[in-house]
Amino acid sequence: MSSSNSPKVKVGVLGATGTVGQRFILQLSSHPNFELVALGASSASAGKRYIDAVAGRWKQVHPVPENVRDLVVQACEVDAFRQCGVVFSGLDSGPAGPVEEAFRAANLRVFSNAKNYRMDPLCPLIVPLVNTDHLDIIPHQRASLSPPIDQGYIVTNANCSTTGVVVVLKALENAFGPLDKVLVTTLQAISGGGYPGVSSMDIVDNVVPLISGEEGKIETETLKILGGLTSDKKAFDNHASGPLAVSAHCNRVPVIDGHLATVSVSFAKKPAPSPEEIVKALRAYRCEAQELGCHSAPEFAITVHDEPDRPQPRLDRDWQNGAGVNVGRIRECPVLDIKFVSLVNNVMLGAATSSVLNAEVALKKGYL
Amino acid sequence: MSSSNSPKVKVGVLGATGTVGQRFILQLSSHPNFELVALGASSASAGKRYIDAVAGRWKQVHPVPENVRDLVVQACEVDAFRQCGVVFSGLDSGPAGPVEEAFRAANLRVFSNAKNYRMDPLCPLIVPLVNTDHLDIIPHQRASLSPPIDQGYIVTNANCSTTGVVVVLKALENAFGPLDKVLVTTLQAISGGGYPGVSSMDIVDNVVPLISGEEGKIETETLKILGGLTSDKKAFDNHASGPLAVSAHCNRVPVIDGHLATVSVSFAKKPAPSPEEIVKALRAYRCEAQELGCHSAPEFAITVHDEPDRPQPRLDRDWQNGAGVNVGRIRECPVLDIKFVSLVNNVMLGAATSSVLNAEVALKKGYL
Amino acid sequence: MSSSNSPKVKVGVLGATGTVGQRFILQLSSHPNFELVALGASSASAGKRYIDAVAGRWKQVHPVPENVRDLVVQACEVDAFRQCGVVFSGLDSGPAGPVEEAFRAANLRVFSNAKNYRMDPLCPLIVPLVNTDHLDIIPHQRASLSPPIDQGYIVTNANCSTTGVVVVLKALENAFGPLDKVLVTTLQAISGGGYPGVSSMDIVDNVVPLISGEEGKIETETLKILGGLTSDKKAFDNHASGPLAVSAHCNRVPVIDGHLATVSVSFAKKPAPSPEEIVKALRAYRCEAQELGCHSAPEFAITVHDEPDRPQPRLDRDWQNGAGVNVGRIRECPVLDIKFVSLVNNVMLGAATSSVLNAEVALKKGYL
Amino acid sequence: MSSSNSPKVKVGVLGATGTVGQRFILQLSSHPNFELVALGASSASAGKRYIDAVAGRWKQVHPVPENVRDLVVQACEVDAFRQCGVVFSGLDSGPAGPVEEAFRAANLRVFSNAKNYRMDPLCPLIVPLVNTDHLDIIPHQRASLSPPIDQGYIVTNANCSTTGVVVVLKALENAFGPLDKVLVTTLQAISGGGYPGVSSMDIVDNVVPLISGEEGKIETETLKILGGLTSDKKAFDNHASGPLAVSAHCNRVPVIDGHLATVSVSFAKKPAPSPEEIVKALRAYRCEAQELGCHSAPEFAITVHDEPDRPQPRLDRDWQNGAGVNVGRIRECPVLDIKFVSLVNNVMLGAATSSVLNAEVALKKGYL
Repeated sequence: MSSSNSPKVKVGVLGATGTVGQRFILQLSSHPNFELVALGASSASAGKRYIDAVAGRWKQVHPVPENVRDLVVQACEVDAFRQCGVVFSGLDSGPAGPVEEAFRAANLRVFSNAKNYRMDPLCPLIVPLVNTDHLDIIPHQRASLSPPIDQGYIVTNANCSTTGVVVVLKALENAFGPLDKVLVTTLQAISGGGYPGVSSMDIVDNVVPLISGEEGKIETETLKILGGLTSDKKAFDNHASGPLAVSAHCNRVPVIDGHLATVSVSFAKKPAPSPEEIVKALRAYRCEAQELGCHSAPEFAITVHDEPDRPQPRLDRDWQNGAGVNVGRIRECPVLDIKFVSLVNNVMLGAATSSVLNAEVALKKGYL
Repeated sequence: MSSSNSPKVKVGVLGATGTVGQRFILQLSSHPNFELVALGASSASAGKRYIDAVAGRWKQVHPVPENVRDLVVQACEVDAFRQCGVVFSGLDSGPAGPVEEAFRAANLRVFSNAKNYRMDPLCPLIVPLVNTDHLDIIPHQRASLSPPIDQGYIVTNANCSTTGVVVVLKALENAFGPLDKVLVTTLQAISGGGYPGVSSMDIVDNVVPLISGEEGKIETETLKILGGLTSDKKAFDNHASGPLAVSAHCNRVPVIDGHLATVSVSFAKKPAPSPEEIVKALRAYRCEAQELGCHSAPEFAITVHDEPDRPQPRLDRDWQNGAGVNVGRIRECPVLDIKFVSLVNNVMLGAATSSVLNAEVALKKGYL
Repeated sequence: MSSSNSPKVKVGVLGATGTVGQRFILQLSSHPNFELVALGASSASAGKRYIDAVAGRWKQVHPVPENVRDLVVQACEVDAFRQCGVVFSGLDSGPAGPVEEAFRAANLRVFSNAKNYRMDPLCPLIVPLVNTDHLDIIPHQRASLSPPIDQGYIVTNANCSTTGVVVVLKALENAFGPLDKVLVTTLQAISGGGYPGVSSMDIVDNVVPLISGEEGKIETETLKILGGLTSDKKAFDNHASGPLAVSAHCNRVPVIDGHLATVSVSFAKKPAPSPEEIVKALRAYRCEAQELGCHSAPEFAITVHDEPDRPQPRLDRDWQNGAGVNVGRIRECPVLDIKFVSLVNNVMLGAATSSVLNAEVALKKGYL
Repeated sequence: MSSSNSPKVKVGVLGATGTVGQRFILQLSSHPNFELVALGASSASAGKRYIDAVAGRWKQVHPVPENVRDLVVQACEVDAFRQCGVVFSGLDSGPAGPVEEAFRAANLRVFSNAKNYRMDPLCPLIVPLVNTDHLDIIPHQRASLSPPIDQGYIVTNANCSTTGVVVVLKALENAFGPLDKVLVTTLQAISGGGYPGVSSMDIVDNVVPLISGEEGKIETETLKILGGLTSDKKAFDNHASGPLAVSAHCNRVPVIDGHLATVSVSFAKKPAPSPEEIVKALRAYRCEAQELGCHSAPEFAITVHDEPDRPQPRLDRDWQNGAGVNVGRIRECPVLDIKFVSLVNNVMLGAATSSVLNAEVALKKGYL
């Protein structure tokens, strides 16, 4: 169990020059529990100072932190990261699979934003405001490897658009019992596509009604996250509380950061709660990361807006440093039971903040 | 019944200086059946040449047509329009109510884009690719007035976002029987808000999850349009074929023209048709305006795109001069039966083109 | 002379519900020298709590500060502000003229962002990184009024686009002597137009090559700001060091915040300095607000970027909380001597920050 | 000399799948003088039907023309194009150099939009509204090759941003004698960067004050275009009428199509003409392409707008199908003599339209 007097845990970042990696660096360069000591990137960057490796590619509104500028970038190989108590992975899905596996096999703890191990039956898929109890599969994950290991593991966080919705769904299920239908339409920001990512010719004065693979992620990840661990802590029950159908329409819109979603849901138990009851329940929702006093946890897991035209990406995405979810327009749905709007900061809670917060919880719970 | 040798019908435009009025003028300035002879606007514009009345407010990519520049704008009073066989109304909802009623009382035929009489039990609400048979309530409308009239009437067209969806719903019901659930999320263009309309501060790098009153319009207009006339042609049956629940989420996005919608539907009869059957049915759909050979009717009422990322507002809104509906991504929905994307050009078929096409059908059917 | 132990100066904000007023409130709600005690707005808002007065109009990414939410808005009349050691004015130019004059006549100190008194021969026009020495006309301003006053005055700050350029020009003149020609093209953000301000229909997928009155402001304000006070401190010399011709082209671009300018200059003395000498001079430039240790002064008055594609509005406008000027691409100009790009945060240094920083300097120099 | 009864000239397009190539295809698929028979692209596309080769890459608002869909794409090698009287090149600068040279060596006529041969002392650099007389260097170009050829040649058109400015400069010089200074700031559309080109992350809510290499092109191409041929028609005089200094600042803005430029100029001869004289001269300007009645020539080479806020890219770029130049805000410049705003459609007159129109003039003048 950590305390404020504990020495900081040394951490590394894989994929450090990419979009997600840059966000990891901003969050970790002055973190109370973690000390950033190792940066990994492709062989093209290895051997360069970080400031040189990201020349022309650093696209953040904050400059490269002073204490990171001169760190020398390494290749994404185990040796350079053996000193790290945590390795954060912002790798693309191409390299993420073998690299993360190799790091785990070397007994390292990997907190990954990549999609590769999200649906793996041994790897927790954790949205830190929802299901940090899934960390408890870690002993089984370690034991199941061949050969077994005693310290390493892989923990993943969810797709950015899943994250923004599932926090609200969890709060609803906690208060009113299982949902049976969820229909989501997303309006997703361009930063979700990385850099250079979405061509300006595709998105200025336009929206694109397709984000390849995204709908499937929402439809499958949601069940794993909302579900529990089996009682032996060796498997995920994938929402055994009842069948839950999830349908997603995903769209790209010309917004820099912030994924908005319109959501309609129905509850297994009728009569469904009223909009007023839901507002109350969402405002009351708290999660383990908050109870444990984690550094990156938001004060409010869910902020419910009263104004009828909120949340909006530009105005609300940076509230609480993007660590919570914003909800508005809670009202009855003529087709399902209830409809509402949710917003998540896709580059914060939807990506790096989730990984960091998952690691903070792991630290508090003795998994580091 | 008109023929190509018939003299043109003289027509006027109310609200001629506004956004919708400007579109009417572009469509009517060189129309084979109509001759634009009278322009009405507020008292501030009355007495001015049109070119002067719209100075600083003409926001079209085409210049003011040569034969309209020097027309003198009138107040929106009956006397200046008595010569008109058709009066198109692009008035705002404020003045539209009393002005359109006065014009009808004076035995004039009004084709209105305003919302005021859309849900009136005597006034047809017509999407020209869907329910032009509703024109047949006109005799009853005339007879029901006090005193009755023998030539005038009010015909309305639908809200722009309703229009883009209901054409597809009609084609589905024609082929596969009644729908019972429709869940729509719109991504609507800024031109739908008129000029100056949406503040740039609200929409650059942003989306707004509220368009006041819009969701209710979609939820109610759809039933009237998809329904039929009673057999005595004195009332609308509002989708008597079965209960139909419609739910809409409406959003404003930074797109100039073109309302995109993601739509999930379920059919009353199971098993529901397959995506392939639906593609075929939508491509086969034809409407009365096409059969009658109306000038503004599109060749294809519905264009189904094969590319997985279409339709897109910027690329597809001007196809067929914006007179048809674009559909794509037809696939199974895990919550309802089928989901897809539709796109309508809100300033063309979603507004002026509908009114003009309704009048063309009325002409062909002897109602002018 | 203030010290960190001095009690805070009570301050008020006129035009508190508007765009500039909202920025004043964010800066003053937790200021080490100033305590925000009075808010003034139009009679429509007077008597309401601030949070209610700005309902639907608060367009900041930060919520209304807790300690301001419940302040009751007053009419812009003297009595409610008599307790204020400084009154900041974010009024529109319509009411600004008579209101600011009345406040000064009542012996109040007005720091105004409005244009009305900028070119007044008694009122300083101060860009806080340039010409805070112009405060020394205050005694003469007080004495020239009829009747004379002993405490009040009006101090103005410059137009937002002027501000971004004139800081650089001042640094150039300090290092290399008088300029004789300056040719500026601005690419100005939409927030400069206030709210609702620029219509989205005018600026999505577009630029507008006119900002009414803006070019004249740059062309005239620059001379007053770059010039000195006469030796008797009773007049401005308007760049008596030599004739200086300034020409501006002003454009509105679809950017939320941050005015970019491309600038070509020529020096009276030849040969002109090299780009390298200019980089060095700009980086070395310091101003009185920095020397006095003012709270809102940036660490770097001018940040010179080495990257060839910087500064950029989105990436650089919030550097140093928008209190400095960003410069890049310093190179030889084939027509004049030197050309470069500058960027100012128009809502920060270009507006509220200038007024606040001017007041901080006034405090340090004994004018409060 | 062609007549309307002449058989069409068979033409081909190199780089047919790219952004410029797509524009060539739209212009040539139904051209009165040219018949599109051959398409060339990279080896990855060679052998495919055009519709397949551009799948996912056709980004035009018009569908692929029916008569082009099934053309089989060839490699960019001479044999497949021997039947062509003209070969239009939309190649990137990488392949353009050797390919265009090989085609010319094979006695083919190449009209190229690439930059490679623009400044070649034997190749005309022609803006079709300006200097079509430069075609007369063709005999010398042919004779200078080794071995000499008797039919082939390379004719280039200018950089898109140069084009929009130089038409106006030419009209000014025709009317008022040589210019000696031109200072230009461009606000250039994203389509100028091709596809995928500019990342949306770089341009949403942003402008970028650098377009690599662009400023130099404007500064050098302008002299060649405004200059004449020497009397022996064997060289370009590069504005021998007097020294002309050109300075450019180039910026990328979030606009789909249409390059705006703010321009200040001074005339060699004083006093300079008044704004009124300039308006008159620009409106009177006519060029050879118009006199010859070329199909793609605009009715007005220069359209001068009276409205004070025009031209604007979105509203004016498609006027005359983008074949002319738009000018507005002609007024005195405090630093040089006169300043104004110009707009060119960069994908039309700024690219494909120039090449096509150059070929139309060549046809009329007997060079085909």
